[in-house]
This record gives sequence, structure tokens and C-alpha cells, in this order.
Amino acid sequence: MSLISASDRVQQVLKGDRRTLARLLTEIENEKTGVEAVLTELYPHTGKAWVIGITGAPGTGKSTLVTALAKAYRAQGKTVGIIAVDPTSPFTGGAILGDRIRMRDLSGDSGVFIRSMATRGSLGGLARTTRDAARALDAAGFEIILVETVGAGQSEVDIARMAHTTLVVEAPGLGDDVQAIKAGILEIADVLVVNKADRAGVNITVRALKTMLELGHPSSRTALASHHGVLMEVEHPDTDTPMWIPPIVQTVAKEQTGLEELTAAIEQHRAYLSDQATFDAIESRQIELELYERLRERLIKRLIESLTEDALAAAVRQVQTRKIAPQQAVELILRSTEGRGT
Amino acid sequence: MSLISASDRVQQVLKGDRRTLARLLTEIENEKTGVEAVLTELYPHTGKAWVIGITGAPGTGKSTLVTALAKAYRAQGKTVGIIAVDPTSPFTGGAILGDRIRMRDLSGDSGVFIRSMATRGSLGGLARTTRDAARALDAAGFEIILVETVGAGQSEVDIARMAHTTLVVEAPGLGDDVQAIKAGILEIADVLVVNKADRAGVNITVRALKTMLELGHPSSRTALASHHGVLMEVEHPDTDTPMWIPPIVQTVAKEQTGLEELTAAIEQHRAYLSDQATFDAIESRQIELELYERLRERLIKRLIESLTEDALAAAVRQVQTRKIAPQQAVELILRSTEGRGT
Repeated sequence: MSLISASDRVQQVLKGDRRTLARLLTEIENEKTGVEAVLTELYPHTGKAWVIGITGAPGTGKSTLVTALAKAYRAQGKTVGIIAVDPTSPFTGGAILGDRIRMRDLSGDSGVFIRSMATRGSLGGLARTTRDAARALDAAGFEIILVETVGAGQSEVDIARMAHTTLVVEAPGLGDDVQAIKAGILEIADVLVVNKADRAGVNITVRALKTMLELGHPSSRTALASHHGVLMEVEHPDTDTPMWIPPIVQTVAKEQTGLEELTAAIEQHRAYLSDQATFDAIESRQIELELYERLRERLIKRLIESLTEDALAAAVRQVQTRKIAPQQAVELILRSTEGRGT
Repeated sequence: MSLISASDRVQQVLKGDRRTLARLLTEIENEKTGVEAVLTELYPHTGKAWVIGITGAPGTGKSTLVTALAKAYRAQGKTVGIIAVDPTSPFTGGAILGDRIRMRDLSGDSGVFIRSMATRGSLGGLARTTRDAARALDAAGFEIILVETVGAGQSEVDIARMAHTTLVVEAPGLGDDVQAIKAGILEIADVLVVNKADRAGVNITVRALKTMLELGHPSSRTALASHHGVLMEVEHPDTDTPMWIPPIVQTVAKEQTGLEELTAAIEQHRAYLSDQATFDAIESRQIELELYERLRERLIKRLIESLTEDALAAAVRQVQTRKIAPQQAVELILRSTEGRGT
């Protein structure tokens, strides 16, 4: 495997060699040593793809929508990479059979590359590996990259931080009560998709979303930034610029209905970002957040390396017996490693 | 405010003074300077409460269930603290009106203390502040602590890592398709609750959950640990010990139906943990994870303090123009701060 040099592998990926790409994605997922060198060499060749994040609660039909969206882009002649982020589950083995069956429609098409990534329960690791995987697909020449994740929680904030356009998927019968907005996912949406729009109650869902958009929108200069999941500290670069109001698009993904409207809405958002020159500000903030994440991971890794198992076990025991508080244990550990280069 | 010493405030909390407790919880949420000293002093007085985590997808009726569960414990004469974790939302202001209305039934009861906590989008901060809030309620003498969070993603793993018993809430009509298990939340469940059990399709939901439990269960020695959200590296301390199979309890929370069965199931889980002497192993692993989290936060904070804004901005610019890869930027930043005590 490692008989091939990093540079050779980079060339293979840039040529779009599927086997090399598949192996690289596996190594990214497994955090294999040496993969960083390949990613570093690939990085200058990235930045061409449009990355679309798709998130939403279970039951909204996200995976079917991703498949339908991929088909729509293929019909436009665009190549599509798909990353489906699965929370690792000892029960399911990470990948969900049902999704894979749906996505089978796309197999055999060399203009499509599908990849499931498991989270492995690693803190922060998912954001990094998903981002790296998207870059690998980008470097390999895929024009549209769809990144799907389960809604609510950190994973969808992560996705908004790496995507250019974030779709939040709702469905009638799930989203009509007040609970549905609890996940707070509306503010990361660039486009709201009401899937399963042939179901009863679709009007209620659409109306509820509209009301929420009206309630939340015109108030804040910082809202644009938060739409892109890049926190609220970023200010709108130009106050005279009109705000982006997330359009609401209705789809019936399993019948391929509404997909033209959806790709058009995504295209409008893309045009908005380039017209308004907000793209640079958002990308810069995304990179800043990425660097922080990577720094955090590196620092804790170094700490763990310099920490002896006994020292940690002793600290845990003292906290467990309530002799010291966790806050004090942290101070003790930091002091004990201080002399040893951490 | 800070005219009162930390020790005086600790005494007030230990006496169960509601105003001091409320103010402390606000300070925990806002990460106010000085709050750590109070928490450190309170820590030896914790460890008496039973912490119950409640998680599940939007629409399952979690908040109503929490209210019903609190009423059931009050009927047993137990005091109850409630922490409702709301993802911060510029749209909703963090707290959801609907939930608060439901929980109004509990107000005026001095044996109940309800608190909403917002996530503020801080990475990792939620886990710490929720844990600290639960400890404050514990020290104040509340016997049962209910911590409610939106399911899927990191927040529910966090909750399983701090709870003694984790309830995963499902509801008919949401959970019957393959999507519903995608969140991978089954493996953190100690008790599965099918709420809204008066709805059509309840049998399908229960059967689906049973099948999934049977598929996933007897296989792995490590499953017990993963049930408690404390990762899979922990081995079962005693292989002859029978596994805990999460019972499935049906409730109609808004009619207070099934709550006796639910509190009984929680009691069985509590008895299981103490009988099997697994409690120590799990608590020790939870503390270990907490120390890692706190260390990670401390390290990044120190790094940020030693990092100049210019240095970071320069690194971001170079990454954005694709002159260097993020991996290289991290190395540069670490090297530049190395000499300055990080």
C-alpha cells in the first residue's frame, strides 16, 4: 500500500482514479498515519466544488432527497460526490441498509461517487474527517458534493461550517408542533426543503416555517453569518446588502418532484454569495474555525501522549472519592505535565 | 453580588436556598469568573442524586414526559431538579414557550426546581455547564435530577456520559421507518420509552425497537459500556454478570399514563447498577471523559490567549488562498506559540 508515494497517489486522485480515491477516503476515516501528507498535497487543488450540506430530523427522507438531488445534477451533466455521515452504531454497523438500497439507483454511474462515513464516537473527529473527505472528492474533480448528516446537535453545525449551501429538510407531520424547531436548525438553513410534500399537512408545515422565518429574520445584522453556521460574532460585511431569506422548496423526493426548483434555489444562493462578495468573509471564518478545531485536537493529543496512565487513574480516583473536584484535578494534571513539553 | 464569599454561597446552596441556587446556575451558564471556586467547594457534597437523562427526536413529547415524570416522583415524595437543555436559537431566544407552559403545572412546588440552559453554540461548553448545573442541584439536595436534551448528535452522547440512567424517547409515527434508528441513539438507552402510546402504530414502534434490541444485544461484552455512553473501550467488569437489556415502557405523558411503570423501570436499572457493582466502573469512566473534556477546553483557551490576532489572520489568509494546507497552518501556529508558554 505505502509503496506508492504520496505524490503518486495525489496524481491518481487528481486524475479521478476511483480506487485510489476510495482507499484515501478509508484512510481519512481511519485517521491513518501518512494521510495528512496526501491531504496537504491535494489541498491546493481544492476549492472548485460546490459543497451542499443536507440535514434534518430522522423521518424527513433526507437520504431519498440526496439521491434525487444527485440524479437532478446528473441530468444537468454535473458530477456528484456524496458523503453520508452515519453515527456509528454497534447495532447497525454504521451504515444503514435502507439508505444504501435507495442510493443503489446511482450505482454504475462513473459521474457519481458515494461514500458513507461513520462517526466512531470521536469528539471533533467527524468534522475533520468529513471536511477532508469532501476535499478529496473536490480535488478528484467532482463538481457538486452532497454531505448528508442526521439533524440536531453538533453534527449539523459542523456541516454548516463546511458547506457552501446548507439544506434543512422538514416533512409534514413531524414539523408542525413547537418541538420541531427546538433543534434550532432553522438558523443554519440557506434553503428549507419540505420533503414528502404529497402528505397531508404540508401547508401547515410550510406556514409554520414561514412564520418562523418572519419572526427571526430582519432583526439582526449578524443573522447572515449564523445562517452559515459560522457563529454570531461575524458581522455582515456590508450593511446595504440585502439579506438572504431562505426560500422554502417543496419536494417529493421519491417521485423526483420539485428537484428542478431545489437546484434552482441552490443556484440562486450560490449567485447570491458570489454577487454579494460575502463568500470570502464566510470562507475565511470557516477556515478560522477549522484551524481552531485542528489545534484543539492536536493539543489534547499531545497532552495524552505526555500523560502517564497512572497519573490519570490517580486523578480519576481522587475525583470519584470526592477528595478533589474535577476542576482541581485538571490543574494537577496540567501542572504535572508542564515540565514535559506540553 | 460578589460581596458574599464563595463559602457563604456554598452554605446557602447546601441549605437549598433557591435564590442562591438560581444565581449560581446563571453564573454556570454564563461561565462567570469565580464560579469554579464555588463548584469546587460544592463538589464533595455531590453524588447523592440520581441523574436521569432524557433524549429523543423532536416530536416525541420529551418535555411533556419530563413534566409527567417529575409529577410521578413528587407523588413518591422525592424532590426533583429539572435541567432542560435548549439549543440556542436567535429565532426562539433559547427557551421554547410551549415547554415552559407545559412545565407550569410544576411551578409553586418547592420540591421542584426547573432550569433551562442554552447551548450558546459553544463547543464542548454545553457538556460542562450541564454537568456543573446537575451537581449544583445535587448539592442543593434534589434527589432526582432530570436532564432533558434534543436527541441525535453530540448532545445526547454528552447526556449519557453524565446520567446514571438514560431514557430514549420514541413515538409512533416517527420511529417506524429505518431512518429513526439512524441517529444511533438506541445504544445509549437504559430504558426505552414509547410515548404517545395511545396513537395508532404503537405496536409497530414497539416491535421495531424489540427487533433492534435483539439484533444488537447479546453479541458484545462491551455493549454495557456503550449503553452508558461511555464509549466502547470499557469492558464489562464481570463477564458472568447478566447484561442489562433496556426495557420498553409505554407512556401517554399528557395523561400521566405509564409513569409508574417508568419509575419502576428506572428503579430496576438503579438496582442493577448497584447490585452488579458496575456503578464504580462507569462512574470512573465518566470522570475520565470529563477530565479529558475539561483539559481540552483549558488547553485551547491557553492557546488562544497566547495567539496574536495577526498571526491567526495571516494563517487563515494563507489557507484561503491555498498557499498552505490547514494541516500546515496548524503546525505553523503551534511553532509560533511554542516559545511563549503554551
